[in-house]
Amino acid sequence: MLVDVPRMAAWIGQVGPEAAIAGIRARLEADYRRWPQFDKTPRVASHSPLGVIELMPIADADRYAFKYVNGHPSNPMRGYQTVTAFGALAEVHHGYPLLVAEMTLLTALRTAATSAMAAAALARPGSRTMALIGNGSQSEFQAIGMRDALGIDRLQIWDTDPAAMDKISRNLSPLGFEIVRATSAQDACAGADVVTTCTADKALARIVEDAWIGPGTHLNAIGGDCPGKTEIDPALLERSQIFVEYTPQTRIEGEIQQLSADHPVTELWTVLDGSSPGRTDPSAITVFDSVGFALEDFSALNYLADAVAGTEFAGSIDLVAAPDDPRDLYSLIAATEARDSWGASAA
Amino acid sequence: MLVDVPRMAAWIGQVGPEAAIAGIRARLEADYRRWPQFDKTPRVASHSPLGVIELMPIADADRYAFKYVNGHPSNPMRGYQTVTAFGALAEVHHGYPLLVAEMTLLTALRTAATSAMAAAALARPGSRTMALIGNGSQSEFQAIGMRDALGIDRLQIWDTDPAAMDKISRNLSPLGFEIVRATSAQDACAGADVVTTCTADKALARIVEDAWIGPGTHLNAIGGDCPGKTEIDPALLERSQIFVEYTPQTRIEGEIQQLSADHPVTELWTVLDGSSPGRTDPSAITVFDSVGFALEDFSALNYLADAVAGTEFAGSIDLVAAPDDPRDLYSLIAATEARDSWGASAA
Repeated sequence: MLVDVPRMAAWIGQVGPEAAIAGIRARLEADYRRWPQFDKTPRVASHSPLGVIELMPIADADRYAFKYVNGHPSNPMRGYQTVTAFGALAEVHHGYPLLVAEMTLLTALRTAATSAMAAAALARPGSRTMALIGNGSQSEFQAIGMRDALGIDRLQIWDTDPAAMDKISRNLSPLGFEIVRATSAQDACAGADVVTTCTADKALARIVEDAWIGPGTHLNAIGGDCPGKTEIDPALLERSQIFVEYTPQTRIEGEIQQLSADHPVTELWTVLDGSSPGRTDPSAITVFDSVGFALEDFSALNYLADAVAGTEFAGSIDLVAAPDDPRDLYSLIAATEARDSWGASAA
Repeated sequence: MLVDVPRMAAWIGQVGPEAAIAGIRARLEADYRRWPQFDKTPRVASHSPLGVIELMPIADADRYAFKYVNGHPSNPMRGYQTVTAFGALAEVHHGYPLLVAEMTLLTALRTAATSAMAAAALARPGSRTMALIGNGSQSEFQAIGMRDALGIDRLQIWDTDPAAMDKISRNLSPLGFEIVRATSAQDACAGADVVTTCTADKALARIVEDAWIGPGTHLNAIGGDCPGKTEIDPALLERSQIFVEYTPQTRIEGEIQQLSADHPVTELWTVLDGSSPGRTDPSAITVFDSVGFALEDFSALNYLADAVAGTEFAGSIDLVAAPDDPRDLYSLIAATEARDSWGASAA
């Protein structure tokens, strides 16, 4: 099965991004609750002066998934996406791929689903207002996921680029959000129940200062996701309850790279399966220090595979050589040589 | 660019497997000579009761490649290939993939090219006769590569399954090889200048015994390629000069897993760039303990990309979301929702 960009965009368009994110969130939550069943590996990164290319594999007893993803902060200035991704899902028992998919759009959905899942577990009940700092590619998906999970319907948006604020307003206004253009990051945080940071600079930035955040706030920090890239004032982290996906990876890539290596953190799956408490007090500040983990891609690919199987959104791709006799790979070439035109078999 | 199975088979059929292997070998040799320029990582394996799924990434300053490959020894009994593979090539500067390709056929070509490259450097000049033990999917490609590199034109074939010997005879006889059906592995080795082992059993097997191998033989051992899978009598290894691809990986996966962890081995690239001697004596036994390394896939993918660019063999695949404004990923969905039929953009 192939879900390329046109098919993915069409599928999301048909079911609606809110339903797609909610569906992935349900699958993701079920998978997070059985976390110990997964064969987990920190992602494998290849760094270059302009960015990074990573492979993120994960498997359970039945399915194997991996994602190819790049991160190049200077890409938008050159007309490219900062992050693009594609990946595959395979059957463990014979090792054949069953789905190849674009994952730039799918990653935006699964990241929103993950943020929404964490916020549903950690934010104060009744949260309605979200500061959305960084109005780039991920921002609309974040807003849509949070509305479905929490009931967020008021957005206080901020970006250093006014054009990005224009863009998110244009995209989200038709969906019925109340959108307030803030005058600064601090202004955006004022009175927010949830603060989402999704900025793209590869820097030890301090997008959110300690003094701006009141008691009871939930921080959804998704932009600090590689070594040397952070968004949150360490003083704010020090007085917060911190939740992570996969501790070994987050120590290297997350906001907590600013803290000591033994600073206490809680893995989110232990909150979801009930073995750890989540928010301990209405006035506590909770931080979901999200860097993105392979399990989220696994859940999203599995949800997608089930959702599109047998529909017009599942294309075909022939990546597995299948000679009649499995030991006679050479016959595929001999057969081609014997034909007048290879096109006869390419249909 | 997409080179799926029909296109790959057609491309090999058109240029001919001998020319394709020779072309990959030339590219591979050039890449092996600049070995230190590559960012190398041992492959990332996910093991299950029935097999393994691996990712093999590698990069230089300009290009990044990875291969997805499975190895399931019981697959042929169930009607599947033991090994299938696909992969991608990407530009390092922006991280976008430029080629997605089937790699089951391509791996057979690159493995033959690698074996041929090693044999050209290590076998005795004038080698004409090759024992070919294990007549499965890789065997025809091995024979074709060795003929081009060394002038091998006499094959002494052996497989425990007579049907496999029938198959290789049927495939290679039309190409002008002199083919001798041996009565045992020992019989196949008698008088052979080169001995190639490419059997598939996942076991600490002893396909070739020490006593069978005369002075001056070159062994091309390609079937021992994962932990617990070997083919060569350790006593034979002890009296041979051993050459490997990437030592850290071969210690774990190769024939030398049977030897002490500090047994001397020579990396093949140092022979090719002239910094190590190869064969030191006409009567020496040389062993290429090949397990397959990501650089070989890198070379093959790059050769393929150049060879098929602009031809009928390069299909298209749309895996990279490319909104007009790179920060407006959401616009891809909004555009879809606004259309009557998504099919209008899928062409």
